[in-house]
Amino acid sequence: MAFKAIRYETEGRVATITLNCPEKRNPFNVQMRQDMVAAFDLADADDEVRAIIVTGEGPAFCAGADLGPGGREQMEQRYSAVTRPDGTIDYAAEAGRDGAGLVALRIYRCLKPVIGAINGPAVGAGATITLPMDVRVAADTARFGFIFSRIGLVPEGASTYFLPRLIGVPKALDWLFSGRFVSADDAREAGMVQRIVPPGELLATARAIAQGYIEGTSAVSMALIRQMIWRGIAMTDPMEAHKVEAWALLARGRGGDFEELRSARGEGRGPRFTDRVSNGMPDFFPWWVDPDYA
Amino acid sequence: MAFKAIRYETEGRVATITLNCPEKRNPFNVQMRQDMVAAFDLADADDEVRAIIVTGEGPAFCAGADLGPGGREQMEQRYSAVTRPDGTIDYAAEAGRDGAGLVALRIYRCLKPVIGAINGPAVGAGATITLPMDVRVAADTARFGFIFSRIGLVPEGASTYFLPRLIGVPKALDWLFSGRFVSADDAREAGMVQRIVPPGELLATARAIAQGYIEGTSAVSMALIRQMIWRGIAMTDPMEAHKVEAWALLARGRGGDFEELRSARGEGRGPRFTDRVSNGMPDFFPWWVDPDYA
Amino acid sequence: MAFKAIRYETEGRVATITLNCPEKRNPFNVQMRQDMVAAFDLADADDEVRAIIVTGEGPAFCAGADLGPGGREQMEQRYSAVTRPDGTIDYAAEAGRDGAGLVALRIYRCLKPVIGAINGPAVGAGATITLPMDVRVAADTARFGFIFSRIGLVPEGASTYFLPRLIGVPKALDWLFSGRFVSADDAREAGMVQRIVPPGELLATARAIAQGYIEGTSAVSMALIRQMIWRGIAMTDPMEAHKVEAWALLARGRGGDFEELRSARGEGRGPRFTDRVSNGMPDFFPWWVDPDYA
Repeated sequence: MAFKAIRYETEGRVATITLNCPEKRNPFNVQMRQDMVAAFDLADADDEVRAIIVTGEGPAFCAGADLGPGGREQMEQRYSAVTRPDGTIDYAAEAGRDGAGLVALRIYRCLKPVIGAINGPAVGAGATITLPMDVRVAADTARFGFIFSRIGLVPEGASTYFLPRLIGVPKALDWLFSGRFVSADDAREAGMVQRIVPPGELLATARAIAQGYIEGTSAVSMALIRQMIWRGIAMTDPMEAHKVEAWALLARGRGGDFEELRSARGEGRGPRFTDRVSNGMPDFFPWWVDPDYA
Repeated sequence: MAFKAIRYETEGRVATITLNCPEKRNPFNVQMRQDMVAAFDLADADDEVRAIIVTGEGPAFCAGADLGPGGREQMEQRYSAVTRPDGTIDYAAEAGRDGAGLVALRIYRCLKPVIGAINGPAVGAGATITLPMDVRVAADTARFGFIFSRIGLVPEGASTYFLPRLIGVPKALDWLFSGRFVSADDAREAGMVQRIVPPGELLATARAIAQGYIEGTSAVSMALIRQMIWRGIAMTDPMEAHKVEAWALLARGRGGDFEELRSARGEGRGPRFTDRVSNGMPDFFPWWVDPDYA
Repeated sequence: MAFKAIRYETEGRVATITLNCPEKRNPFNVQMRQDMVAAFDLADADDEVRAIIVTGEGPAFCAGADLGPGGREQMEQRYSAVTRPDGTIDYAAEAGRDGAGLVALRIYRCLKPVIGAINGPAVGAGATITLPMDVRVAADTARFGFIFSRIGLVPEGASTYFLPRLIGVPKALDWLFSGRFVSADDAREAGMVQRIVPPGELLATARAIAQGYIEGTSAVSMALIRQMIWRGIAMTDPMEAHKVEAWALLARGRGGDFEELRSARGEGRGPRFTDRVSNGMPDFFPWWVDPDYA
């Protein structure tokens, strides 16, 4: 796979996706969107990958959409694709979807823990695509710019779903109304950032978190857990969660992993789980129907 | 517009609504409900108003419903209007709606940032109507009384929707079960109050927050953002947020404000956004259908 | 009522349910499930009970499901009951429901405040059944093990609904991905535990909280409040909350409790509310339809 806007590397069962146009502060554009979606597809399909880290090359994490000439051209292309002969916009057209939204929804569907290692400023789309990640570790030089009110636009990346769930309505509105840059400290206090470290310790910290998730755990359990929790916050009755849990317990309670647990306990050793995401997900998975865009 | 229970003043693009029956600690009654709804209608319709502050005259913010003779009379009128000939209650009757609920739902629909400047005790309806505001700044003399369990009633003002989203279920139930008064400090720690200041600095602080939202931002972006976040927490799939965001980005990405941004950047100055809420909202707005009461 | 896995005691209008197999660290099994559901039925039906405390005998709160021979036998019975002749699982079969889920949903439906007094380690089902309680007070020796990823299974007890609402998605996923034990301090910081005390003060603290809810409050108001808040977080529009509140205010505003309030105020004394949960709930209660499992 040839990526242009990112690097994709795997080591120690962790895939690291690095936004990689540091000379332009890793702008978010069509290439970046395509590369990121493809990278998550790759990581999800590779059973050797148990966790995913997303970080940026250079001093910035992601500068957001390019509002200069290059970005303008991509925006005009989008308008051409969604504008009807009579000049009105076809809101149902796939081509009208914002790239940050496509990336955010792809991360949302991911089957492995996703750890953001935010190495510097994350602005616009650069801020919103971190929200469906499971953990955000930030360098103390990181800051977040939900700057949409100051450029005449609105939040993107499905962030109007994710942000208020992460930090609550008052903070979400304060950040979005003011459009001000939020420090790593303020983001941690708000619950957006889970941990702050010096820049030099950022990747090591993200890798240590990943290893803490990987060692001694079941890959299939993890995939189920990730989706159960993210889908769980959208449920409107605990019965929905109860059903999925009961089904999954039945499916997992006589699977290979559970037999391995029994053997391991009998032998006084730690389990070596071998069920794989590629072919070991329960037959009822996915239990939801993904909604269409149109 | 002649208000009786409130004052309505605009200055510096901020409308200030002051609950204004200090001799009775600003009780919440039919007049107050009518005045508040009308004041929010006025502020939303006035493009010169970019933010709204709600505060109370005198030492109290709002004493809640009057449970004495005056309140009893209004309650009896409500019962007359909703009671069928056979003595049963017609729960679907509009006349049965609690006034705090009508005010809370009106604030929920507001298109401009709403800042509560809580100058003193806020009790019953006085506490619940602050919950759909976007920010609550409190004087250190403020306190909140969700006292319903102690008067044999239940929460009002749609607060069973707003309160647990603001402070979580355990705190919401603790406050409501006990019916005790909550200090400004406890309310801040719980996430209900965003900032505490000495009483003499309350209005200046609220105005400074409002100016931080107004200066350099787009009025139409703000209106969309407010509704996108408040509606966002009610969505059951991030795809719903993604759709609205993509539509709004298309609608805003070639509007007057965005052209102004480009001009301003080209000229090395800050933008002067001119799109107005009164006639500049996207054609798909509102994207939801307001549910009926009945 | 003869309980085997628990003790059920009432004193001072508080029912205390004590998980009572301390020699096995109070394991969660079929007997425990049956006893707990029956105990909550008993407490809800008894108007003399105004609050419920759940605690464990001995050093542990609840060790979770027994994964040894006894537990294996119960699991095999479950599989027998849900497996079709062709070997596939009938996911709709009632017998497939996990016991922790049945207990959690029973607690969810409870009409009285539920206070967890977590005296020691709470593991697996022992951790998840505490989530639909209203308050969790923990001994400083308590710790919580959401250990599912380490045993090849998934969360149970409808916890994928309750846990992220209580502590947010990032913490919920961190605890579940890692499967590590969480200290009482960490659980308090996350919002799961509301208070930590020395073990010797645990029950007295839980009882004091219960008394703070009971003294001077209306039993029927409390029952309504509990369901309004728990159902409130699942609503997708504040109008739903507004309706239930308006109905309940009409139903309660001329009931016996409200007349007593007026008398008490006229006489300058505290009210003695007498409406009862057994026969005093409003005629529209419950206002929801419980979803089926199948």
